[in-house]
Amino acid sequence: MRHAFECAVRFDDLDAYGHVNNVTFAEYLQEARVDFAHRYLADDLSPHEGSVVAHQSLDYHRPVPFRTEPLQVVLWVTRIGRSSFDVAYEIRDADTVYVTATGALVAFDVAAERPRPLTEAERATLAKFLEP
Amino acid sequence: MRHAFECAVRFDDLDAYGHVNNVTFAEYLQEARVDFAHRYLADDLSPHEGSVVAHQSLDYHRPVPFRTEPLQVVLWVTRIGRSSFDVAYEIRDADTVYVTATGALVAFDVAAERPRPLTEAERATLAKFLEP
Amino acid sequence: MRHAFECAVRFDDLDAYGHVNNVTFAEYLQEARVDFAHRYLADDLSPHEGSVVAHQSLDYHRPVPFRTEPLQVVLWVTRIGRSSFDVAYEIRDADTVYVTATGALVAFDVAAERPRPLTEAERATLAKFLEP
Amino acid sequence: MRHAFECAVRFDDLDAYGHVNNVTFAEYLQEARVDFAHRYLADDLSPHEGSVVAHQSLDYHRPVPFRTEPLQVVLWVTRIGRSSFDVAYEIRDADTVYVTATGALVAFDVAAERPRPLTEAERATLAKFLEP
Repeated sequence: MRHAFECAVRFDDLDAYGHVNNVTFAEYLQEARVDFAHRYLADDLSPHEGSVVAHQSLDYHRPVPFRTEPLQVVLWVTRIGRSSFDVAYEIRDADTVYVTATGALVAFDVAAERPRPLTEAERATLAKFLEP
Repeated sequence: MRHAFECAVRFDDLDAYGHVNNVTFAEYLQEARVDFAHRYLADDLSPHEGSVVAHQSLDYHRPVPFRTEPLQVVLWVTRIGRSSFDVAYEIRDADTVYVTATGALVAFDVAAERPRPLTEAERATLAKFLEP
Repeated sequence: MRHAFECAVRFDDLDAYGHVNNVTFAEYLQEARVDFAHRYLADDLSPHEGSVVAHQSLDYHRPVPFRTEPLQVVLWVTRIGRSSFDVAYEIRDADTVYVTATGALVAFDVAAERPRPLTEAERATLAKFLEP
Repeated sequence: MRHAFECAVRFDDLDAYGHVNNVTFAEYLQEARVDFAHRYLADDLSPHEGSVVAHQSLDYHRPVPFRTEPLQVVLWVTRIGRSSFDVAYEIRDADTVYVTATGALVAFDVAAERPRPLTEAERATLAKFLEP
């Protein structure tokens, strides 16, 4: 199972070359992660149980000019560890993959400001999106 | 030789957790690249001779809360190809490295919208910053 | 007639206080303007016939925390001059008005970098959204 | 007395027209306010004693293309009320004023999420920058 987030492109996302800036694609990944966490994880976690990005890698395949149709940010899980997990992403529309990316996320106690083990509920949810 | 860019941290760079957001660090890398290109490459290139990011990878080591002292973004070259080159970065201050990153850049003709070979002048400048 | 633009709120729009930052609301106004121009004006204008913001005024009535439901940015025209026009905005949802704003826009030749008279087609379109 | 904040222009501040976007100038005003509060007010306030923007008005006089020299954001106080105060701004360099702006700020208890009276220390500091 993969999570698909519809991401509207803003005029503000364009840089001086008239394309969506490379930095903005990292923002799109973040919006997809926040949407995923809100939909699938938030109910089973306390507000202080979050996660932080430890690593991220992006490959840029094609430029994106301004468009009124949203992009899809597709997200799935590739590894589940004790206190971290890995994800993969595609930023795409029906025809074209513009950006592919991977990331390592660390389960984090935002109150204590330190890593925490994944909860059982988190592991069960992440497992539904696992494609090793 | 490494290029060090002083990057002021903005209040706007903070996210809802009160730290510089992971996406913003990709913006800091971009500002360092633009500054590098402006200082060392712009005089020898036509306005349509730019470069685009083909790949980027970031490792987040420590969070950065709001600070009035700028960060340093240190940039150097790790490979020079025919129409592309690789760079490495550290985002740091005197005491701490917060983010390390690598990137692959492709020399690009922004008018023709296609890759171009690196010019001799570009190669000579990049070679001064080369640490394979 | 008023134009209503559905604007998704991004996690990135929040500031360190966990609310949509005051600056971001100016970005929402811009996205609504771009959407309006794309839908109603672009077909009758040459690519170099744009407009620029000469004045903008915003009143902030209530804070907006993170939300997955989009906001509505409602836009209408309050004055049509020879080479400029005024607009009014509401940023709202069904229940609440969060921000009201007004702006003066100047018709601009982006190639020549100077003001231009509004075209007849532009004036006719703007007149449909006029509420003096 | 006026407070002058040196604001570096980022490549990311440019829009698809190659100029600093109108929205970004509102961000520059915010960075100047945060710098002012950090320098002159923070020592006399508790962390929960902040302020929020209730109104803001900007006049755009000239476009700003990319530049490596910082802009100056000059800020002063034009009115001190019981729980609010007004400020004026110029975004400029030695030769040119690009943007002028005014704003109304409300002293705010960010923990209780409601307005609060200005403290005596705040009033004394603001009075040093008062030009009615």
